[in-house]
Amino acid sequence: MLADKNLKEFLKETASNSPVPGGGSVAALSAGLAAALTAMVANLTIGKKGYEELEEEMTVIAKEAEKYKDLFIEYIDKDSDAFNQVMDAFKLPKETEEEKEIRKNKIQEALKNAALVPLEVARTALKIMDIIEKVVVKGNKNAVTDGAVAAMMARTATLSALYNVKINLGSIKDAEFVEKTQKEVRQIEEDVVRLEKEILGKVVL
Amino acid sequence: MLADKNLKEFLKETASNSPVPGGGSVAALSAGLAAALTAMVANLTIGKKGYEELEEEMTVIAKEAEKYKDLFIEYIDKDSDAFNQVMDAFKLPKETEEEKEIRKNKIQEALKNAALVPLEVARTALKIMDIIEKVVVKGNKNAVTDGAVAAMMARTATLSALYNVKINLGSIKDAEFVEKTQKEVRQIEEDVVRLEKEILGKVVL
Repeated sequence: MLADKNLKEFLKETASNSPVPGGGSVAALSAGLAAALTAMVANLTIGKKGYEELEEEMTVIAKEAEKYKDLFIEYIDKDSDAFNQVMDAFKLPKETEEEKEIRKNKIQEALKNAALVPLEVARTALKIMDIIEKVVVKGNKNAVTDGAVAAMMARTATLSALYNVKINLGSIKDAEFVEKTQKEVRQIEEDVVRLEKEILGKVVL
Repeated sequence: MLADKNLKEFLKETASNSPVPGGGSVAALSAGLAAALTAMVANLTIGKKGYEELEEEMTVIAKEAEKYKDLFIEYIDKDSDAFNQVMDAFKLPKETEEEKEIRKNKIQEALKNAALVPLEVARTALKIMDIIEKVVVKGNKNAVTDGAVAAMMARTATLSALYNVKINLGSIKDAEFVEKTQKEVRQIEEDVVRLEKEILGKVVL
């Protein structure tokens, strides 16, 4: 899987003329980096003088953030796989009417999946803003910039994933699905931009 | 070096209770991801029907973006090394007056370096906004979201690196250095936020 590649290889493959890994996988990776930094700030708070009463809360946050980190790692591949499925559907035979119909349906199915995968990344990256805020406000002061970086990475991960939702929506013919998803996209965009600003406003250097 | 670790290991080390790799190395990595995506859009434009007259320009951009990608990879380590140098300076002996003086100077020197390394990441991540804009506006339309993600990653890389500059400035006693650097930090912040907005405004989905 992509997450087994080293950073140099992953960046080299991203830079190549192959469409995957691309922006969608990078969005999932940056959400993973946000979750990892959140876990780090929590872990750097546990056992530190002056933060004794936060021990339990930070332990819970560290575990939760590590769980999200692992989830986002899976999405690095899921996003690239979803893109490949769309490409495969386009390659299906289209000689007979029946083949055309099957191909059309497979393409639509694959496009919906290619929208839903980054939508799930966006939803989850938005969700971790809650624990990022907690580590920024209550966590080890010496690691507050790491919390700030986590907030910005989660914001960019969310917005990046949403670009990948929107580009796929453009080719999906199920109007109800498109409308419902567009509405959710706009809401997440609004929320994540507001939350990043709020959290950065609480960073005391 | 850190870039030889696979994504899973790098994220795990980031999440651990060791201060490095932290936000500074993550900033360099996300600048590397922005450069890699820029190279990808250029590479996906070269040789494609309808983009024949951009062949030369996109070849230059792809090479430049790949060079920046490799530079940012080096900064993933440089940032963590700079942090470790500060920690090492704090561990120097402080028994005699002479030792105290040496230690104080070494700490100040290490802090300046720990500010200058992310400052260089921020300057360079700001600089690549120029080629990101070019691939977004002229590059392969099918990869326009990858260009958008590159712009957002470069913005977050820049701002993240600048947080790491600012936190170090707080402990640096050379007032002239601090003032000059603060001024540059504010200018880069302003520029990168404006450029991200301008580029995203040019993304046609």
